[in-house]
Amino acid sequence: MRINGRGADERRPMKLTVDINKYAEGSVYIEVGDTKVMCTATVEEKVPMFMKGQGKGWVTAEYAMLPRATNTRNQRESARGKLSGRTMEIQRLIGRALRSVVDLQALGERSITVDCDVIQADGGTRTTSITGAFIALAYAVNKLAVKHSLPVFPITDYLASVSVGVVGEQMLLDLNYEEDSKAKVDMNVVMTGQGQFVEVQGTGEEKPFSRQELDGLLQLAEKGIREMIEQQREALGPIGLKISGGETGANA
Amino acid sequence: MRINGRGADERRPMKLTVDINKYAEGSVYIEVGDTKVMCTATVEEKVPMFMKGQGKGWVTAEYAMLPRATNTRNQRESARGKLSGRTMEIQRLIGRALRSVVDLQALGERSITVDCDVIQADGGTRTTSITGAFIALAYAVNKLAVKHSLPVFPITDYLASVSVGVVGEQMLLDLNYEEDSKAKVDMNVVMTGQGQFVEVQGTGEEKPFSRQELDGLLQLAEKGIREMIEQQREALGPIGLKISGGETGANA
Amino acid sequence: MRINGRGADERRPMKLTVDINKYAEGSVYIEVGDTKVMCTATVEEKVPMFMKGQGKGWVTAEYAMLPRATNTRNQRESARGKLSGRTMEIQRLIGRALRSVVDLQALGERSITVDCDVIQADGGTRTTSITGAFIALAYAVNKLAVKHSLPVFPITDYLASVSVGVVGEQMLLDLNYEEDSKAKVDMNVVMTGQGQFVEVQGTGEEKPFSRQELDGLLQLAEKGIREMIEQQREALGPIGLKISGGETGANA
Amino acid sequence: MRINGRGADERRPMKLTVDINKYAEGSVYIEVGDTKVMCTATVEEKVPMFMKGQGKGWVTAEYAMLPRATNTRNQRESARGKLSGRTMEIQRLIGRALRSVVDLQALGERSITVDCDVIQADGGTRTTSITGAFIALAYAVNKLAVKHSLPVFPITDYLASVSVGVVGEQMLLDLNYEEDSKAKVDMNVVMTGQGQFVEVQGTGEEKPFSRQELDGLLQLAEKGIREMIEQQREALGPIGLKISGGETGANA
Amino acid sequence: MRINGRGADERRPMKLTVDINKYAEGSVYIEVGDTKVMCTATVEEKVPMFMKGQGKGWVTAEYAMLPRATNTRNQRESARGKLSGRTMEIQRLIGRALRSVVDLQALGERSITVDCDVIQADGGTRTTSITGAFIALAYAVNKLAVKHSLPVFPITDYLASVSVGVVGEQMLLDLNYEEDSKAKVDMNVVMTGQGQFVEVQGTGEEKPFSRQELDGLLQLAEKGIREMIEQQREALGPIGLKISGGETGANA
Amino acid sequence: MRINGRGADERRPMKLTVDINKYAEGSVYIEVGDTKVMCTATVEEKVPMFMKGQGKGWVTAEYAMLPRATNTRNQRESARGKLSGRTMEIQRLIGRALRSVVDLQALGERSITVDCDVIQADGGTRTTSITGAFIALAYAVNKLAVKHSLPVFPITDYLASVSVGVVGEQMLLDLNYEEDSKAKVDMNVVMTGQGQFVEVQGTGEEKPFSRQELDGLLQLAEKGIREMIEQQREALGPIGLKISGGETGANA
Repeated sequence: MRINGRGADERRPMKLTVDINKYAEGSVYIEVGDTKVMCTATVEEKVPMFMKGQGKGWVTAEYAMLPRATNTRNQRESARGKLSGRTMEIQRLIGRALRSVVDLQALGERSITVDCDVIQADGGTRTTSITGAFIALAYAVNKLAVKHSLPVFPITDYLASVSVGVVGEQMLLDLNYEEDSKAKVDMNVVMTGQGQFVEVQGTGEEKPFSRQELDGLLQLAEKGIREMIEQQREALGPIGLKISGGETGANA
Repeated sequence: MRINGRGADERRPMKLTVDINKYAEGSVYIEVGDTKVMCTATVEEKVPMFMKGQGKGWVTAEYAMLPRATNTRNQRESARGKLSGRTMEIQRLIGRALRSVVDLQALGERSITVDCDVIQADGGTRTTSITGAFIALAYAVNKLAVKHSLPVFPITDYLASVSVGVVGEQMLLDLNYEEDSKAKVDMNVVMTGQGQFVEVQGTGEEKPFSRQELDGLLQLAEKGIREMIEQQREALGPIGLKISGGETGANA
Repeated sequence: MRINGRGADERRPMKLTVDINKYAEGSVYIEVGDTKVMCTATVEEKVPMFMKGQGKGWVTAEYAMLPRATNTRNQRESARGKLSGRTMEIQRLIGRALRSVVDLQALGERSITVDCDVIQADGGTRTTSITGAFIALAYAVNKLAVKHSLPVFPITDYLASVSVGVVGEQMLLDLNYEEDSKAKVDMNVVMTGQGQFVEVQGTGEEKPFSRQELDGLLQLAEKGIREMIEQQREALGPIGLKISGGETGANA
Repeated sequence: MRINGRGADERRPMKLTVDINKYAEGSVYIEVGDTKVMCTATVEEKVPMFMKGQGKGWVTAEYAMLPRATNTRNQRESARGKLSGRTMEIQRLIGRALRSVVDLQALGERSITVDCDVIQADGGTRTTSITGAFIALAYAVNKLAVKHSLPVFPITDYLASVSVGVVGEQMLLDLNYEEDSKAKVDMNVVMTGQGQFVEVQGTGEEKPFSRQELDGLLQLAEKGIREMIEQQREALGPIGLKISGGETGANA
Repeated sequence: MRINGRGADERRPMKLTVDINKYAEGSVYIEVGDTKVMCTATVEEKVPMFMKGQGKGWVTAEYAMLPRATNTRNQRESARGKLSGRTMEIQRLIGRALRSVVDLQALGERSITVDCDVIQADGGTRTTSITGAFIALAYAVNKLAVKHSLPVFPITDYLASVSVGVVGEQMLLDLNYEEDSKAKVDMNVVMTGQGQFVEVQGTGEEKPFSRQELDGLLQLAEKGIREMIEQQREALGPIGLKISGGETGANA
Repeated sequence: MRINGRGADERRPMKLTVDINKYAEGSVYIEVGDTKVMCTATVEEKVPMFMKGQGKGWVTAEYAMLPRATNTRNQRESARGKLSGRTMEIQRLIGRALRSVVDLQALGERSITVDCDVIQADGGTRTTSITGAFIALAYAVNKLAVKHSLPVFPITDYLASVSVGVVGEQMLLDLNYEEDSKAKVDMNVVMTGQGQFVEVQGTGEEKPFSRQELDGLLQLAEKGIREMIEQQREALGPIGLKISGGETGANA
């Protein structure tokens, strides 16, 4: 039996508090169980050096944890003077995932940086960051689209992410920290509103895993993400987000 | 006329949400107008190298801003690979101020790190951090005192801080960002419940200031801090904090 | 048609030159097409701080490229003063993959560092590094096992890795650099001699991918890895490597 | 009784050796008791990025100690790879203080960097640096003013600094290292020739301090700084420095 | 008696495998006994900031060792975050030596970076790097000269380097690691095809050395370098290298 | 004709002001023409990690320049966050040179760090540093020898250094900055009181140099160093320095 009586295929409650930052073009405070992440999107009218002069935009992400987001205090990466490999891996993942649903051409020569700062961590911080980052991004892009009357709306589909894993003999959806630390297989899945994969990252922590396990986990993830995207749709409803990606788009 | 019709000697509303972090020994989310800081206190049963074997404890602080706490996004200090001078100056100030009301002997060979993370900034982030850090520290020390039945309560007095300044011809209490950026004189004052000074840092930003200005600003700061300490007293009431510093102590 | 007339499910020629370093406990120079990696394994009779006193060993990896391994010269990470996110992500992956086929208990309190230095790069440097690192590791562990008469042989199975991807409409095995840069889906798969997954990392570079594509790519990867493990078996034959992992073990 | 029989309100002897560097636009070797600082001012015909195009100049300072300036050798900050918080705090203070008596508009788009290198330290290195930095700055500005026939002389007033503190029950002027390390209250004051404050930084090292103590210390500092400025006036006399700040100016 | 029965004035066998990198403009794999270095030369159509607008080119070098090039594994300089003093000293030496035989004017505003990566080390890595770097440089410059029909061939002479030393009472040519670590005097000599000195760096490791020892060592080095340049001439023969430096030039 | 009418084989005036630092175990302010270096020696009763438990001592050196030691201001290496290659090369050279005249066994498990801080630079800063560092070292070692009644005096000989070079057609002794920047050949020589070589570093800056030039330069250096050691002898006379290295020792 899972904590709080959750079923194996049941997600933790997810709460989205949108537009809470006084300055950011888009922002959301996302809570998935006890995992809490502040996501803010910043628009800048310039692109990184390597993108200059292509008429295209760029979307990137940064990820960090407050020192006491976790059970024991972590030293700040600013104090250590460098980012850990884990942080870099996560922020590369978030940025890549976001870009998969952005039409960089339609964005124009602008860049959007989404900051995901984990205020409290209880497993699934990278997947929660992606799910929240999409909301912050959508708010920021919506403002841009209105302000500049962009002819094509630069977001092409919804995007959410969840973790799944094998703990003991059971396949579980949306692992909290305790479950994650006991998992034999750990998988992070990122999917679109259309039900397509953006990232599949499965790791046999202790030992390898079989094709059947892989298939079961993917199915579980798909269920969870479908539900999360429903919640995103509601959260984005008020701003009338126009997703160009077909039937999943709010105003398509 | 100040924003929201504030009088020259009127503080912004202050809100303290205590004990909000699942893991930290003490925590508070402090809001002073639009300035919002998460303060968490972490207790460790060890002291830094330079304090070893003295039978005394240590209290230190770290300060940081989320990238989009401000109007334009700031690069993370972790990405730049080093702390700015401003950050170091502020965290040295917070730590020094906290230690002035802690009996390090009574604390025993333990260290407490108070993290002050600015979620949103609108002026006065260092003074707000000090005021909040004291609350987080008090919660953590209280737990310690109960858990280890400390014979002497290690906190000796209340502690709060406010900024004052000269804007135009007027002396103002509790400057917001806009006022701060126009101030000719800027002063941060840290005081105890007993009404004594812990830090006085006055700077003539554009031009020097007179003894009369200094005196007027100190008086304004004293008023503000007295009010803030009243609010701290209420916030700490429920935990029955015992301040050994005389008549200001809740249960003295 | 692929370069050199390769079929879609055909790997590039792989060449393993073993035991070529005068000092390292295990070493191999692995060439997969024009991708060339020097792998050396170093045994040390100590473990990292976080593993001390557990009676278990540790296996880790480091990855780097010579500056002119690629078409244009890359600045050295030593000169830049820090590792890139890409490098950290890759060396974390290699280490994790190797540990999945090592019985750390059986290894004893020792650590093995496998260095993968890319001498020339033409796509698939991380998968080639894993395949080569396993050989270097096996040589080093074999020496250890003989020298210390380890009761249980610490390697539990073979391990190899390959990249697969979707280029145009075609699914391809073992992408070279040019194919990789045009791929819409890019997947790295790490598998054991038993045919189980250790890592599956699929990314939709430009756009998301479907479940069918995922299944097709996994099948292609499985074929490639099975062939590579056959070559590893031959390369390790002369040292009489004893894999405890069942029917795939050379001397089981 | 203080070392060398100094009275409580008596400064240590101050010696200014001006124009001693072959290359610098302005320089002074300042000795205050056993504290010895080399100050050099460098003029550059450019301003930092953030000041460009405003038609204004910039003045900044850097501070460092030779490794053996102190009783035990300190590791070089260059070897540690970063500046300490203390160093950054001090050089920010020196720069800010200098700018308060410079008319940046009158300076034109130029920057002056004043380097304060402590050759030997015996307390008061930051205040001694400010007092010396002003001299070096004045020499450099004077050369500039002559060379470019600046219509307005860019220095508006004299500037000096001293430390005061409470040691035991006594208020003392100009603490040496031994006194400083025993002080209960430590205050650094920066003042102009007009007798106005530029910086007041008071800290209760062990315990808070009262308003009366603050007032007494400020009075002591004022006396010391008035005397120091007299000495500066003599040192600057030969170059006929024109201070526009009223009756204190040499040639006003 | 030396290892492998070498005489005191006998070099280790040297093997040059040229043009082995798919991407580099010039490359050689040089083996001197068990010391093995990969040298690649990269041409870029730009010069460093400090050389801009002078119509001249620049030649520089970088040097590194693979972690397991030596008997015990060395930590990567990229992981340590900085280059060691030894590395910097060596790469400055290589760059300086190469520039002494390049006509920077004839090169035009281009820069050539020669990377020397030690794959395996057994003494003499810096001298071997210089000897190999010259070959890689020559190949790259030759391509440049042909491609741009340079009117003057920018390489003015051959260049090679060897170490000599006093071990016990004997003067030895081309020390391997074991000899080097026992040497009382250690000298690296760089010479041209004309028999002139480019660098002479002699160090009394344990104790000072006499003028006679210096003279003897220089004579030994001269013999070794003359032989090495013969081998370089053969290796460069096929590309018809035109050295403008007189009778030593292949096609002069 | 050289500046100040110096002859080709004439040194600049050298002035040694000994024992000028209040805290250091040994110190000297050395002036060679306009090159001025502060040298301080610090004794610590411990050795670096790699020397522990061998019953031997260690001598090392650090070198730095004040930012305005030169004609244009140099950025501080502490601000850049790393030492330049030049700095590292120089401090390695100074340390190596000093160790060549120290009996590390006789020193016992202690380390001496000699700091050479260039206050003003006009060519020859590394050679001047060595000459001064020897004096500071000798003072520190002398105190040690007296304090601990060391049975063998740990300094074995005098040590000094000078630069020589070829400017135009002339061989010159002790180059100043202007001469150095025009030199075709630049050589730094370190010698002992016995007239033996410790380091010979000759570089053909623009073009290679001949054996005759090398011989001539060595002879010039020998003359200069012999004279400098005479001056060292006088400067060390008052402390009755006992050099065990034979007839050159003051009290041998």
